Amino acid sequence: VAEDAPILQLPARAIPVPASLSPEAQAILALGPLDSGGDYPPLGDLEAWRRMVAEQDERVIALIGGMAAAYPGQSTEIEIKGIRAYEFVPRGWPSDDGRVLLEVHGGGFITGGGELCRLMSTGPARLSGVRTVAVDYRMPPDHPYPASLDDCVGVYGHLVNEHGPEHVIVSGASAGGNLAAALILRARDEGLPLPAAAVLGTPEADLTESGDTFATNLGLDNLLLRSLMPANLLYAGDHELTHPYLSPLFADFTKGFPPTLLTSGTRDLFLSNTVRLHRALRSAGVEAELHVLEAGGHGGFLGQAPEDAALQKEIRGFMGRHWGAA
Amino acid sequence: VAEDAPILQLPARAIPVPASLSPEAQAILALGPLDSGGDYPPLGDLEAWRRMVAEQDERVIALIGGMAAAYPGQSTEIEIKGIRAYEFVPRGWPSDDGRVLLEVHGGGFITGGGELCRLMSTGPARLSGVRTVAVDYRMPPDHPYPASLDDCVGVYGHLVNEHGPEHVIVSGASAGGNLAAALILRARDEGLPLPAAAVLGTPEADLTESGDTFATNLGLDNLLLRSLMPANLLYAGDHELTHPYLSPLFADFTKGFPPTLLTSGTRDLFLSNTVRLHRALRSAGVEAELHVLEAGGHGGFLGQAPEDAALQKEIRGFMGRHWGAA
Repeated sequence: VAEDAPILQLPARAIPVPASLSPEAQAILALGPLDSGGDYPPLGDLEAWRRMVAEQDERVIALIGGMAAAYPGQSTEIEIKGIRAYEFVPRGWPSDDGRVLLEVHGGGFITGGGELCRLMSTGPARLSGVRTVAVDYRMPPDHPYPASLDDCVGVYGHLVNEHGPEHVIVSGASAGGNLAAALILRARDEGLPLPAAAVLGTPEADLTESGDTFATNLGLDNLLLRSLMPANLLYAGDHELTHPYLSPLFADFTKGFPPTLLTSGTRDLFLSNTVRLHRALRSAGVEAELHVLEAGGHGGFLGQAPEDAALQKEIRGFMGRHWGAA
Repeated sequence: VAEDAPILQLPARAIPVPASLSPEAQAILALGPLDSGGDYPPLGDLEAWRRMVAEQDERVIALIGGMAAAYPGQSTEIEIKGIRAYEFVPRGWPSDDGRVLLEVHGGGFITGGGELCRLMSTGPARLSGVRTVAVDYRMPPDHPYPASLDDCVGVYGHLVNEHGPEHVIVSGASAGGNLAAALILRARDEGLPLPAAAVLGTPEADLTESGDTFATNLGLDNLLLRSLMPANLLYAGDHELTHPYLSPLFADFTKGFPPTLLTSGTRDLFLSNTVRLHRALRSAGVEAELHVLEAGGHGGFLGQAPEDAALQKEIRGFMGRHWGAA
């Protein structure tokens, strides 16, 4: 920002729940903030980070455990080149169908591992209807960059070898959208083939948080209530936040990137992340489509509104058009 | 909105010009509000409306007259079934090329007619590189709905008869995006064929203004500084704002709509209009793509930033993929 650029002073405002939404979506917004919005620990206090991560994972497991268990199929802990992952095979999945969804979980680079990773893998499996492998990648505070990305690239390399790249779609939301994009970039740079497609849900594409909606949607997003910079710095360690493997927005996409679907919402703190990545992909000639939920925050309507269902149908259709023949 | 729904109270905020933009786009945002944001006249004071329209048209003509004159080609006033229009033929246009862009100008349903319509027709002609017919449709206060739409449908019917629907693309921004969508819907309902495609720039798709960004982006958009409801009511006269010919968002798109490109910006007061229309089209199975400018208001960056140029390239590419062979 230019040092002398004027600052827009916005007065205090009252924002109603918009009538443009379904009753179900209105009910979600009427709940108000969905997170406590507490502060991150000091960067050096690793024990405090571990405690925060454990508490947050427990809270989320209590919330989604029931939902996750409701989708019929077989969840198995597997190991790929020493990397832990969870495979979810939908009930009735034909053993000769080579398609596989590589899912990279979200959670701000610090939460969402272990049992939560296993539980969350049922969501993308249900959405895609396809066998899903969720990487339980290593994370800070104990394993800063590049451990998480190493694990994602390792599993990706295995899956394209086993199944062929035309049968692999990579998906991830939030920090998982960052890692999903970054793993494709690094795999590409290392000579691996591109996957059939990528699905990036409100991706954390720019760890420097330079986007406009980090300011304009602050207080409007009901899930992301603050800057995530402390976690970004913990993740990056000694590495530059602007490196394309840390902030995929800054990559050179003319060197290749698969067809990509991106989603966000008009109240999403990561709306700028998402629309900027979409424009960057399109400007590089990459097939990319953008879908934005009216009044949706970073979590949309938690999968409980018709708006979410319509978007899921869109994503399923996109995957269907991009899978190679089984 | 549910009567008892809680209101989100946002504190006063300072919004910087984001570093995510090109210097040119930052300079546009640094100008602050681009409109005086004065009040509309009382609905019944037609003389005051006429005065406001004349003053506003004059201001815009002074601003864009020079730019418009810079694009080489021949501008001719024509009459189609008694409806005035301006035809712009780019220099060197082959006489046997049947493609034509039907442009519906914006201006909140009240401004942008006459000489301004003629001047503004060079913009879409330059963007598309194609022969352009801009309808100088009748407007309030003297001609409320359905006069404007009648004129647009009349010209459309003529063009599809003369050129074949596969050679006609319909475009419009703001109120022009409303009328462009509405004319396609009415033409379809009257048994006319669909055009090859539609390009809707930040369309005023919902005259009831029920979208969330009418609240959340108020004060952030540098061009639209207030609700446009007085002009909407003047335009609608005795007709319901929710009728699909007045608010195309509420139409049944499963009955048919052409491939559509939609544009908006994250600060656009009409971002909700745009993303809701995009979702409605996609949910009806219509081929539709959405492009959102980072930190862009209703006018983007006035055509002066690389961000605008990239979007124009996107639109040109979309048109090129959808024109029938000449």
